[in-house]
Amino acid sequence: MTDQAPATLPRIDGRAPNRLRPVRLVPDYLRFAEGSVLVEWGNNRVICAATVENGVPGWLIGQGQGWVTAEYAMLPRSSKQRIMRDANRNKPNSRGIEIQRLIGRSIRSVVDLKAFGERTILIDCDVLEADGGTRTASITGAFVALALAIRKLREAGQIGKKPILTDYLAAVSVGIVEGRPVLDLDYLEDSQAETDMNVVMTGAGKYVEVQGTAEGAPFSAKELQALLALAGEGIGQLIAAQKEVVGELG
Amino acid sequence: MTDQAPATLPRIDGRAPNRLRPVRLVPDYLRFAEGSVLVEWGNNRVICAATVENGVPGWLIGQGQGWVTAEYAMLPRSSKQRIMRDANRNKPNSRGIEIQRLIGRSIRSVVDLKAFGERTILIDCDVLEADGGTRTASITGAFVALALAIRKLREAGQIGKKPILTDYLAAVSVGIVEGRPVLDLDYLEDSQAETDMNVVMTGAGKYVEVQGTAEGAPFSAKELQALLALAGEGIGQLIAAQKEVVGELG
Amino acid sequence: MTDQAPATLPRIDGRAPNRLRPVRLVPDYLRFAEGSVLVEWGNNRVICAATVENGVPGWLIGQGQGWVTAEYAMLPRSSKQRIMRDANRNKPNSRGIEIQRLIGRSIRSVVDLKAFGERTILIDCDVLEADGGTRTASITGAFVALALAIRKLREAGQIGKKPILTDYLAAVSVGIVEGRPVLDLDYLEDSQAETDMNVVMTGAGKYVEVQGTAEGAPFSAKELQALLALAGEGIGQLIAAQKEVVGELG
Amino acid sequence: MTDQAPATLPRIDGRAPNRLRPVRLVPDYLRFAEGSVLVEWGNNRVICAATVENGVPGWLIGQGQGWVTAEYAMLPRSSKQRIMRDANRNKPNSRGIEIQRLIGRSIRSVVDLKAFGERTILIDCDVLEADGGTRTASITGAFVALALAIRKLREAGQIGKKPILTDYLAAVSVGIVEGRPVLDLDYLEDSQAETDMNVVMTGAGKYVEVQGTAEGAPFSAKELQALLALAGEGIGQLIAAQKEVVGELG
Amino acid sequence: MTDQAPATLPRIDGRAPNRLRPVRLVPDYLRFAEGSVLVEWGNNRVICAATVENGVPGWLIGQGQGWVTAEYAMLPRSSKQRIMRDANRNKPNSRGIEIQRLIGRSIRSVVDLKAFGERTILIDCDVLEADGGTRTASITGAFVALALAIRKLREAGQIGKKPILTDYLAAVSVGIVEGRPVLDLDYLEDSQAETDMNVVMTGAGKYVEVQGTAEGAPFSAKELQALLALAGEGIGQLIAAQKEVVGELG
Amino acid sequence: MTDQAPATLPRIDGRAPNRLRPVRLVPDYLRFAEGSVLVEWGNNRVICAATVENGVPGWLIGQGQGWVTAEYAMLPRSSKQRIMRDANRNKPNSRGIEIQRLIGRSIRSVVDLKAFGERTILIDCDVLEADGGTRTASITGAFVALALAIRKLREAGQIGKKPILTDYLAAVSVGIVEGRPVLDLDYLEDSQAETDMNVVMTGAGKYVEVQGTAEGAPFSAKELQALLALAGEGIGQLIAAQKEVVGELG
Repeated sequence: MTDQAPATLPRIDGRAPNRLRPVRLVPDYLRFAEGSVLVEWGNNRVICAATVENGVPGWLIGQGQGWVTAEYAMLPRSSKQRIMRDANRNKPNSRGIEIQRLIGRSIRSVVDLKAFGERTILIDCDVLEADGGTRTASITGAFVALALAIRKLREAGQIGKKPILTDYLAAVSVGIVEGRPVLDLDYLEDSQAETDMNVVMTGAGKYVEVQGTAEGAPFSAKELQALLALAGEGIGQLIAAQKEVVGELG
Repeated sequence: MTDQAPATLPRIDGRAPNRLRPVRLVPDYLRFAEGSVLVEWGNNRVICAATVENGVPGWLIGQGQGWVTAEYAMLPRSSKQRIMRDANRNKPNSRGIEIQRLIGRSIRSVVDLKAFGERTILIDCDVLEADGGTRTASITGAFVALALAIRKLREAGQIGKKPILTDYLAAVSVGIVEGRPVLDLDYLEDSQAETDMNVVMTGAGKYVEVQGTAEGAPFSAKELQALLALAGEGIGQLIAAQKEVVGELG
Repeated sequence: MTDQAPATLPRIDGRAPNRLRPVRLVPDYLRFAEGSVLVEWGNNRVICAATVENGVPGWLIGQGQGWVTAEYAMLPRSSKQRIMRDANRNKPNSRGIEIQRLIGRSIRSVVDLKAFGERTILIDCDVLEADGGTRTASITGAFVALALAIRKLREAGQIGKKPILTDYLAAVSVGIVEGRPVLDLDYLEDSQAETDMNVVMTGAGKYVEVQGTAEGAPFSAKELQALLALAGEGIGQLIAAQKEVVGELG
Repeated sequence: MTDQAPATLPRIDGRAPNRLRPVRLVPDYLRFAEGSVLVEWGNNRVICAATVENGVPGWLIGQGQGWVTAEYAMLPRSSKQRIMRDANRNKPNSRGIEIQRLIGRSIRSVVDLKAFGERTILIDCDVLEADGGTRTASITGAFVALALAIRKLREAGQIGKKPILTDYLAAVSVGIVEGRPVLDLDYLEDSQAETDMNVVMTGAGKYVEVQGTAEGAPFSAKELQALLALAGEGIGQLIAAQKEVVGELG
Repeated sequence: MTDQAPATLPRIDGRAPNRLRPVRLVPDYLRFAEGSVLVEWGNNRVICAATVENGVPGWLIGQGQGWVTAEYAMLPRSSKQRIMRDANRNKPNSRGIEIQRLIGRSIRSVVDLKAFGERTILIDCDVLEADGGTRTASITGAFVALALAIRKLREAGQIGKKPILTDYLAAVSVGIVEGRPVLDLDYLEDSQAETDMNVVMTGAGKYVEVQGTAEGAPFSAKELQALLALAGEGIGQLIAAQKEVVGELG
Repeated sequence: MTDQAPATLPRIDGRAPNRLRPVRLVPDYLRFAEGSVLVEWGNNRVICAATVENGVPGWLIGQGQGWVTAEYAMLPRSSKQRIMRDANRNKPNSRGIEIQRLIGRSIRSVVDLKAFGERTILIDCDVLEADGGTRTASITGAFVALALAIRKLREAGQIGKKPILTDYLAAVSVGIVEGRPVLDLDYLEDSQAETDMNVVMTGAGKYVEVQGTAEGAPFSAKELQALLALAGEGIGQLIAAQKEVVGELG
């Protein structure tokens, strides 16, 4: 970030540096899932669906707690170049694995795993269309799908009244593009960014994940602070959108 | 099929035996694919997307012709019980493989492979939601995605004027449920059917695939004829719907 | 099928259009299998072997019924071009998977799965030499191997007297070659066929599977009828051959 | 081997300690393979088939020499307990891999790899029925299949007159059973053997492979010598049988 | 981090909160690698080895630049519980994949990929013994192995004089344990940490990666700053240790 | 071996034909393993580590005995050409599988499997650096790791006093290089050897494995005897070295 960066110059799509792309959350998008949402965020479209299953992974059996995990995949034509399906690759999809670990870990940070017995909640994030930021859209949507599933379970009397979710949770990307910190990078900005950072935060404004990567030049402490501030702004708006769909956390 | 079968009794969802569920084709559903369509058919939702790539599989190189193939997958929460992703299975998804072979073979029957050079057109059929009949919805939609992709290529001057598609193509299921031949089985009917048959036909009313299977009791020659007649009725309506979206075959 | 097709012209190997190639069934070909047969059908040689195991697949446990399934493979030098072993491929053998699903499904249609307890009968079909029609030879032989295994189990007092097999079962291919419907295509005819159809029928003359595919041009309703008629003729002869080896169904 | 071992007591099947089981070599067993043989050796039945392909593995390209390799597999019902197909295992078939490496290495020891250009000869050994000693039957048969393939290539004028095979080659097992060295163990003897040894030798009586394993107690130098002597006797008879089928090495 | 945290209380192993464990770098640990180092860091022992190969991955061919990548694995008995080898797992080792992507990305940030032609440098990080912090030890060692390999290439005249490394690079973990920010967590601390953060920095004190994760409770902005400060202290010492082994960057 | 072979000519590294390279055994090399040793043998460095786990493989359950098995792998830069990790190969590492089967089988020959209950001892052999003879180094070291693990278990009172090891066990390679039998081949000799033999023997001088392979020309009976004699010499020295580290077998 240089002092010369003309902070008022509009971005490629005309947004101000601290503006999110339009976000729309369509709840109950799938008939069968316990909870689901279609996230439309700029040109991204991601379906998040929560499945509640009895039982937990082997290493948790008998510990009287549940588990939450996630899977992430992109439809082949979600992007400009067709993407080979994971099932057809000869080697693991490293990027996808990293993303789904991030989603699962993030969501677990606001879940009281002891509050819903030996159940596993699996959240599928499937990208119909991608335009930069599918991992933050997935985390933000995964939280919604989970909250809707918990509400449904509770209304059906299948779980007790003990709160399961300890806070709201959303994620956003920030980065340094052409020397200037900006919020919520689209694909084009992302591919030009010198630094790219994903931030996951709670409704209370605390950090769950901070993942900053220098794609081009390393970044300074000052730039890091500017990025964190932008991320905080974006998270606030995202959590407001979640509240409209999810309501109060039960 | 017994004579006692009360042919006028409505089906579970009130349809007459020879009625299709409502079908809606949403063209250009994906931004990036050369051709794409969302097929909404009863409670099924399937995205079909055509990708045009240079080159052909190794065994076709140098023969001056193209290739058309298909892939088929279901999103994990497209059905009541969550389905494991193909990439996470220890063994191949036999049902999926059989379906995508059927889609590819069916589509190729109306394509002049020599008319578009050494290119491969790959049609992805991804099921967002399933309610019986996803393979026939996939074939019917795959044809539309292909036709739209060809039109786009032609408009961009990337292929010559020689016709590539020789006819329209659609598919429908028929079956014997509670002793009575019916058209277009939904999931519930399909799971009760004594016989299940998928029929792929051209706009000219010729057969491309006839796949009949006795799930319960073997079926008689008379029943077979009744099923084929019903299938013919359904295909006619499907091809009419395709024509509205695709227009004349160029 | 055009009217001009000289119906009396002999085929490549001199057969009449409605003639099977010679079929020979060698029972008890393997020492260890509960039931086995070597099928010699024209130049095809296929070993079918039935194995009876205690237990059923996970999804059937506790339902008080058995299961029948099949596996199919070709020896590497069963054909003119050596075939890579399935274990050495990087991707699943789609054709083989489709065939073994067909064999299993066909056989189950004449088995009372509730009549032999929580057992699994696995029928291995291994092709020593191939010349067109190995899937129909496999189905026809699989039935014999199964019937022999059941007889052995019954003679050993390991299963009760309740009939397990509800009918005989055989399969044959038919197709349209040079515009003329013919029975039981060999490899050369198969590779030239405009339409190829596999038909699985019971001793009572009912259909279990009808799988017709237009390899070249789509086929008409009239052609479909001619093919079904030819198939019926062939099946009758095959079931007569089975009866000589298997005798009465117990 | 203790001195008390009653050397004249017959073996389970009545053979003398230095007797082979009956061996029969059926040449040209498969229509398509360049060379093939059915080996019937006691109750073992193994098909060996040689395939000649142009080209060599990547690491040999451009070195002006050929390559010989082998594959080995057992049909599922070749043994008392059904064997899972390699393609269905979750992990590699270690025993099979070890055997096919042994076959390939053994055969190469009598082949002049520089005498037939950049070709690969692949020898498939498929066990129809097993009764102990399938690896030695495979080596012995692989040599025959190879010799027949070379003769066919030479008669067709596809290779020059330079000798390719430098000697005959056969293999036999020996072992210590109930304290007594015996030749050519069947399955029952093999499972009781204290020591098991496979010996591969040339027509000139030289060793190509000696693989002795103490299954129970370690073996002494004296026992080792007795086993080597028995193996030599057996190899002589096997090579005599090969000569009847193969004739002079060209 | 609570105000009550007794900042002067020693840690389990007696270290002050801002103290690294002892670090020792043993250069040229392997005979064959172009560059190698054994990193002994507390009870961690990691071998880092750089391999220089001609050629680049397919997607880089013809772009006139090189590539740097990394692989990471743990020996089975590097930890208290034996770890299954990656080759024996049924599914990919997600943690390992994430770590090796981090190593490769970090190292590339200080490499001028255009300065060494179409070569690939692969850095293997193999953990002999693990005690918390193997990923930061791997990054710190990978830089050393790379620098040694480059020096060797340069001394051998195989690359030009253009600088390849733009700065030093090291990594360290920080975290919040029992409410107090500490530097360089060992295994025991890591398993108790509320927050865990890995920081990768250059010799110039700029950030390359910042990966903070709330394992327990989310962390505040104030805690984040304290962690970043600690990390900076540790990195300085690590880079000093690197300079002793590597000397000036050529 | 020709009579002309100048038996007194030194080998490449100056050793006499019957000389081992220097062998050093560093016990307890790993903190966590129940027993471990670093084997330095010439330029080979191999870590052997024994892990004791409760339970046995499925086919042994309920038979009141234990199991011993081994795994073998090479670090990527253990050799001159980097070796791909097993986990990244598309096909099984046949050589590695063969070696680890040999290690496991050899070790079991001196273990009383009934003496330590339903436990599995898994011995990992990981090659840090290779220079010919890693399999014999692995066997020799695996025995030491096992003996150390058993002593530790016994000292901890976790197993009874019944002896578990019935004898010492070591392995060495011998071969014919330039016509002369030599002991303990290094990589260069191994790649030139006409015949290569690995011999595994007990402290009592009995054979456990004899694996001789003609890499070039077949070998005579006389050569075989010379190799066996050399192997015996080497084994004696190796077992002496083991005794210094392991002491008396408990």
